[in-house]
Amino acid sequence: MSVLVVGSVGYDTVSTPVASGKDLLGGSATYFSLSASRFTEVSLVAVVGKDFREAHLKLLGDHKVDTSGLEVAEGKTFRWSGRYRHEDVNSRDTLDTQLNVFAGFKPKLRPEHRRKDYLFLANIDPVLQMEVLGQMERRPKLVGMDTMNFWIEGKRDALAKVIGSVDVVFMDEGEVRSYARESNLVKAARAIMGQGPKTVVAKRGEHGVLLVTKDSVFAAPAFPLDTVVDPTGAGDTFAGGFMGYLASTGNLSHRGFRRATVLGSVMGSFVVESLSADRLLSLDYDALQSRFRAFTALTSFEELKAGEGLPWRGRNGRFEKGTK
Amino acid sequence: MSVLVVGSVGYDTVSTPVASGKDLLGGSATYFSLSASRFTEVSLVAVVGKDFREAHLKLLGDHKVDTSGLEVAEGKTFRWSGRYRHEDVNSRDTLDTQLNVFAGFKPKLRPEHRRKDYLFLANIDPVLQMEVLGQMERRPKLVGMDTMNFWIEGKRDALAKVIGSVDVVFMDEGEVRSYARESNLVKAARAIMGQGPKTVVAKRGEHGVLLVTKDSVFAAPAFPLDTVVDPTGAGDTFAGGFMGYLASTGNLSHRGFRRATVLGSVMGSFVVESLSADRLLSLDYDALQSRFRAFTALTSFEELKAGEGLPWRGRNGRFEKGTK
Repeated sequence: MSVLVVGSVGYDTVSTPVASGKDLLGGSATYFSLSASRFTEVSLVAVVGKDFREAHLKLLGDHKVDTSGLEVAEGKTFRWSGRYRHEDVNSRDTLDTQLNVFAGFKPKLRPEHRRKDYLFLANIDPVLQMEVLGQMERRPKLVGMDTMNFWIEGKRDALAKVIGSVDVVFMDEGEVRSYARESNLVKAARAIMGQGPKTVVAKRGEHGVLLVTKDSVFAAPAFPLDTVVDPTGAGDTFAGGFMGYLASTGNLSHRGFRRATVLGSVMGSFVVESLSADRLLSLDYDALQSRFRAFTALTSFEELKAGEGLPWRGRNGRFEKGTK
Repeated sequence: MSVLVVGSVGYDTVSTPVASGKDLLGGSATYFSLSASRFTEVSLVAVVGKDFREAHLKLLGDHKVDTSGLEVAEGKTFRWSGRYRHEDVNSRDTLDTQLNVFAGFKPKLRPEHRRKDYLFLANIDPVLQMEVLGQMERRPKLVGMDTMNFWIEGKRDALAKVIGSVDVVFMDEGEVRSYARESNLVKAARAIMGQGPKTVVAKRGEHGVLLVTKDSVFAAPAFPLDTVVDPTGAGDTFAGGFMGYLASTGNLSHRGFRRATVLGSVMGSFVVESLSADRLLSLDYDALQSRFRAFTALTSFEELKAGEGLPWRGRNGRFEKGTK
C-alpha cells in the first residue's frame, strides 16, 4: 500500500552545537517522504516557490518520492531558521520563519492521490488538514496527523475536528499535555483518544516516544548516539518510518504498531546524524537492520519465565524466592 | 548477601500538585533501606536527633532494616522541605533545609558492618563517603554511590576520589553531564567510567534510567502512572531495589544488572504512589511480580527472528523484503 503525505517542503537554515547549514532541504513532508519511501510508495503534496532547486526535485524523485503533487507557485519557497542550544530537539529557538508561498497553500489532491489507503497530515493549518481529508474518495485505512502549539493555542476548534477524524495523533509530549489540559501524560493521551483516535504517539525528543493505545502503553527510548548533528526533522522522519512500515506490511495489529514505533525511532536516529535528510539518502538495508537489532539490545532484559519468581523477603524476614 | 547503606534519615515536609504532608519519614538511607529490605538484609548507618520518633524506629525494624547503626545524637533530626511544580522529580523547589544533627555526622561503622559485601554510599559529603569506604575491612564485592550538584560544584576533588573507588555511580542525567562536562549523555557516562566505575546509572526522572556499561547501554523507561502522589525518594528507592536485587541474587553479570535496573524502576514506581515511603510498607510479592510483568509489557516488541528481515525498498524502487 502507498502513503500520501500533505505538509511542507522548504529550506532550513540551521545552527547546532556541532554543525550549521544554510538553505538546507527541509520541511515536514520532505522528511516524512524520504523516510517512508524506504518502505513503501509515497506521494507528497506540498507547495514550493519558483526558487526551488531542480536538484532537490531530482533528489526526491531519485529516492522514489512521487512529486506529482508538488505545486510550484509564484514566489519564494517556505523558509525556516533555527538554532539548537543542546542536542535535543526540544531546546531549539526559532530565529525566523518566512511562510512565502506556503501562506497561500491550498492543497488540491490529484485523482490518484484521493484513493490512497494511508494518509499523513503533517503539521499544517488544521483547516487545511480537514480539507485534505474531505478530498479523499473514501476514508483511508489509516490516517495520521501531527500538529504544534501554534494551532493548539490559535485554532483549537478546527484542530479538535481533525483530531476527531484521524486514527493516530503524533504530538510532542508537551503538546499532548497542553491540548488535553492534563499534566499526566498517559491520562492526557487517553483524553485525546476519548475524542476519536485509537492511538496517540507522544514524542519525547531525546527520551523517545510513548505509544498509547486503548489497552496498552509502549515506551520506546530514543537510540543513544555519540553525536547528534542536527535534530531537525526527527519527528517527521519518525512518522515516515512508522506510517511507511505499516503501509508496507499492512500489519495494523498491536504488534505491528509497536514494531512501527521502533522502526520510526530507528529512522529518526539516523536522520539526526547529519544536516538536513542527508543520512536518509545514504541509508542502506544493512545499516537499518543493524540498528534495529541494536535497538533490541538497548531495551531488552530477561523477563520472568513461566514458573520463575523474583527474590522476595516477607515481612517476617523470611526469604522466599517467588515461584508463582 | 546483605547491604550496608550510609546516608540520611530525616523528616520531609512536602507539597505536590496532589498531596502534601509535614514531617514525613524521609532521607536517602530510609528510602534505600525500605526498598532493599524487600530483597535482602540491609543495615542502615545514619544519624537522627532526640526528636526522632520511636514509631519510626519501630517501623524500620518491622520492615527488617537493621538500625543498630542509627546513631541518636543531641539535637534535632535533619529536615527538608520542598514543593513539586509538576509530577516530575526534576521540577522541585527546595524551600528549606535544616541539617541539624546531620551537620556533625561522622559515620563510624560497627565491626559487623565493616564486613558487608554490598555497600551503598548515598548522597552525603564525598569526604564522608570516602571515610566510610576506608573503614571497610575489605573491599566489598560491589560499591554504589549517589551524589548531587552541590558536591559536584563544591567538592569536586573529594568527589572524584570517591568516584574513582566505586563500581556503580548513580546520578541524575544532568549531574552526569555536569560532572563530566560533556553534554552528550552516553559520552559523559563513559567519561565517568574512565575514572574507574564499571557502570553508570543516569537517572532521568519520569523518563526512566540509562544504564551504561563498558560494552552496552540499556534504556529503561519509568513506569507510566496515572497518578504520581510524591516523587520524593524515587532515586534512592531505585538504588535500593537495584542493589538489593544484586545482593540477593549475587548475579553481577550484565543480565543481572539489567534486571536490577528494571526491579529498581519497579520499586521506584511504587514509592511515588504515596507520600513518604508508605507504598513500600504495604507492598506484597504479587504486586511486585505483576508490575514487573507490566514493565515487560511496556517495553517489549517483536524482535527480528533469525532469517527474518524488515521491509525495504531499494533506491531502484524495487521492494525487497530483507531476509538476511
